Amino acid sequence: MSSEFVRGLTCRLCGKRYPKEALNFCTEDFGPLEVEYDYEAIGRSLRRETLERRPRTMWRYRELLPIDGEPTVGLQVGGTPLVKANRLAEALGVRELYIKNDAVNYPSLSFKDRVVAVALSKAVELGFDTVGCASTGNLAGSVAANAAAAGLEAYVLIPDNLEQGKVLGATIYGAKVVAISGNYDHVNRLCSQIAFRFGWGFVNVNLRPFYAEGSKSMGFEIAEDLGWRAPDHIVVPMAGGSLIGKIHKAFKELEGLGWIDPVCTRMFGAQATGCNPITNAVKTDAKRIKPVRDPRTIAKSLAIGDPADGFFASKLMKETGGWGEDVDDEAIIDAMKLLAETEGIWAETAGGVTLAVTRTLIEQGKIDRDGSTVVCITGNGLKTQEAVIDRIARPPVIRPTLAEFESLIGASPAEAELAPAGA
Amino acid sequence: MSSEFVRGLTCRLCGKRYPKEALNFCTEDFGPLEVEYDYEAIGRSLRRETLERRPRTMWRYRELLPIDGEPTVGLQVGGTPLVKANRLAEALGVRELYIKNDAVNYPSLSFKDRVVAVALSKAVELGFDTVGCASTGNLAGSVAANAAAAGLEAYVLIPDNLEQGKVLGATIYGAKVVAISGNYDHVNRLCSQIAFRFGWGFVNVNLRPFYAEGSKSMGFEIAEDLGWRAPDHIVVPMAGGSLIGKIHKAFKELEGLGWIDPVCTRMFGAQATGCNPITNAVKTDAKRIKPVRDPRTIAKSLAIGDPADGFFASKLMKETGGWGEDVDDEAIIDAMKLLAETEGIWAETAGGVTLAVTRTLIEQGKIDRDGSTVVCITGNGLKTQEAVIDRIARPPVIRPTLAEFESLIGASPAEAELAPAGA
Repeated sequence: MSSEFVRGLTCRLCGKRYPKEALNFCTEDFGPLEVEYDYEAIGRSLRRETLERRPRTMWRYRELLPIDGEPTVGLQVGGTPLVKANRLAEALGVRELYIKNDAVNYPSLSFKDRVVAVALSKAVELGFDTVGCASTGNLAGSVAANAAAAGLEAYVLIPDNLEQGKVLGATIYGAKVVAISGNYDHVNRLCSQIAFRFGWGFVNVNLRPFYAEGSKSMGFEIAEDLGWRAPDHIVVPMAGGSLIGKIHKAFKELEGLGWIDPVCTRMFGAQATGCNPITNAVKTDAKRIKPVRDPRTIAKSLAIGDPADGFFASKLMKETGGWGEDVDDEAIIDAMKLLAETEGIWAETAGGVTLAVTRTLIEQGKIDRDGSTVVCITGNGLKTQEAVIDRIARPPVIRPTLAEFESLIGASPAEAELAPAGA
Repeated sequence: MSSEFVRGLTCRLCGKRYPKEALNFCTEDFGPLEVEYDYEAIGRSLRRETLERRPRTMWRYRELLPIDGEPTVGLQVGGTPLVKANRLAEALGVRELYIKNDAVNYPSLSFKDRVVAVALSKAVELGFDTVGCASTGNLAGSVAANAAAAGLEAYVLIPDNLEQGKVLGATIYGAKVVAISGNYDHVNRLCSQIAFRFGWGFVNVNLRPFYAEGSKSMGFEIAEDLGWRAPDHIVVPMAGGSLIGKIHKAFKELEGLGWIDPVCTRMFGAQATGCNPITNAVKTDAKRIKPVRDPRTIAKSLAIGDPADGFFASKLMKETGGWGEDVDDEAIIDAMKLLAETEGIWAETAGGVTLAVTRTLIEQGKIDRDGSTVVCITGNGLKTQEAVIDRIARPPVIRPTLAEFESLIGASPAEAELAPAGA
């Protein structure tokens, strides 16, 4: 039980306090609401050693997540690998590189399972039996899968141009999927209206303050797997701009509990050039985010033109000595291939964005080649096959004879590599 | 170090012993070779409590896997969830049901990562730098991904009719993929010739004895997650027929170590009716497997007409009081949907086969409704989208207005469910 640990919600702009209920934003200034905890009570109640003996899921950090009782949805989410990426490090010319690989998150193969596990557990606590979301794809699948497992009815609204794998990855679970002719920002506005009118629990609308906290678990796991330390640099993809802030919040919470040394991590945000409202604000030192009206990128999961947390994300990057950078579709695909060929990790287009930006930042000298760097991979390549299918050579077809095989590879055993002793 | 634990290879037919090298089969009678261990030494060296404190990957059972040194490939493989499937249990009318979910195995989302991790770790030990496989799809992706991460050159041979997701899921990693005009059995025969001629390490040809042992880790994990016990029934998909035997071997090894009670598990095997050489042998009480010359099923990953371990699989099912059953494409798709809608798990077609067979066996009374049952899901639904895309309704498209949404769902808030207190 962690009910004693969540104090309530607080507006990030004016500081007004609210009870822990389903709320979209501050009624005074429309500012986003942040969950507040009683960290002293958490510190008295929880030891690092206790946590380390718990099952390796996101819920081992449950005192730092905004659920009052035991979690009821998404019990297997999280605990994804932090991969020491030595072959990729060599290719990029850096010393210490890690991939946080949420492409294999349970159940729906993206980091969204983390936020949905919290949002739907909270929805059950608040008494909702119908839930929903506005999604660029990964959230659709995660809400549909987790709602199905929990026996909740789910409405999933998506732009009408999504990849087949992401659409089927929501409909297969029996969710009521509705495609909207328009972009994500149109979808999102409609969801706000529906949530208000029908009184449903939309994970990224009226459950958003709780939902967003789920992302912290990615930061907790990274720090734990680094041996309880924060990395020197971390590169995070940005759509709405929430994840980068929550990972930083996670590091700061661990620092506050005295579990890790003071955090000096430089936070780097990655976007596609075809939808770069946040990185553009960083690079032009703009005071506010200028929405992108017509996003055009193969990284559809990042194509949010009017990012809810863009302002806070750009502020964070500047305050921590980080930076925001964006890359074009060509660079995205090259990076997807590089990641697959060096580390055997097939990320979706968003992962290509993050790695391509990492590469650019290393070349620019903004990421120190001697420091430790974590690259956050948030979704699986199987979901965005359209983006690469025409860019990867199709296999040659031969008949099942040794002669045709030898002719294809242009070698007989004499020319091929010699057999080792064991063969 | 576990080198002291592996004694060598033994022919399953004549018992002739061989050293632990890359060998296809017994030179006397072409019988399959089985890895032999020194269980007494393992029992003296390893305690259950020691193992429980290790990272949750397949390698926590490394003393029972045929690697001489530390594993070097696939270090993150295994540790997949055993899901207590209460909603599915209710739908099927059984008391205690579990899904062993290798659809989220690392890195390539199928149980094949287990066998490949062992085979490639062994390939490195034996000095191979070029590896390969004959595959119906999942093995292709697993060899390609794990070989890329390990820096090994990989040749992947597949039938020329595979699903896009499985082809792209091998080429993306930079493996040399060759499509063969023919079925799996043609591919497999060619691979035997190539392995012999070029001296390469083909995981399911000359590395097969080691490779197959990797499947035991699925059984170890199931028993551990059940609180160190074997289930009353387990349903396992069969292609070559190896997995079912290795899971049983795993239970028996744990029994031999005194870690679980004597094993009374009834072993059930699942195939598609369009390629059912093993279940057909069970149902007709045949003395030998009659190959299926022209497999026709949407479950392409199970479409092996001449299964290498079919004889042993059918023998095992009969000896344990289990059974073999097969199902048609319609039943496969229905079961895929049922699993997704009740448990939020999107399995590939093979998973549909296994669940549909489970359902049939329950209806036939062959699986006891009051016993415990584990259903093995071995691959991810994102890889076989073609099989269901035309069977799942596409989402309706509306403009982004509340009026169109209400018209679509045929409800205004008054008719829809009432909002809960928290809304």
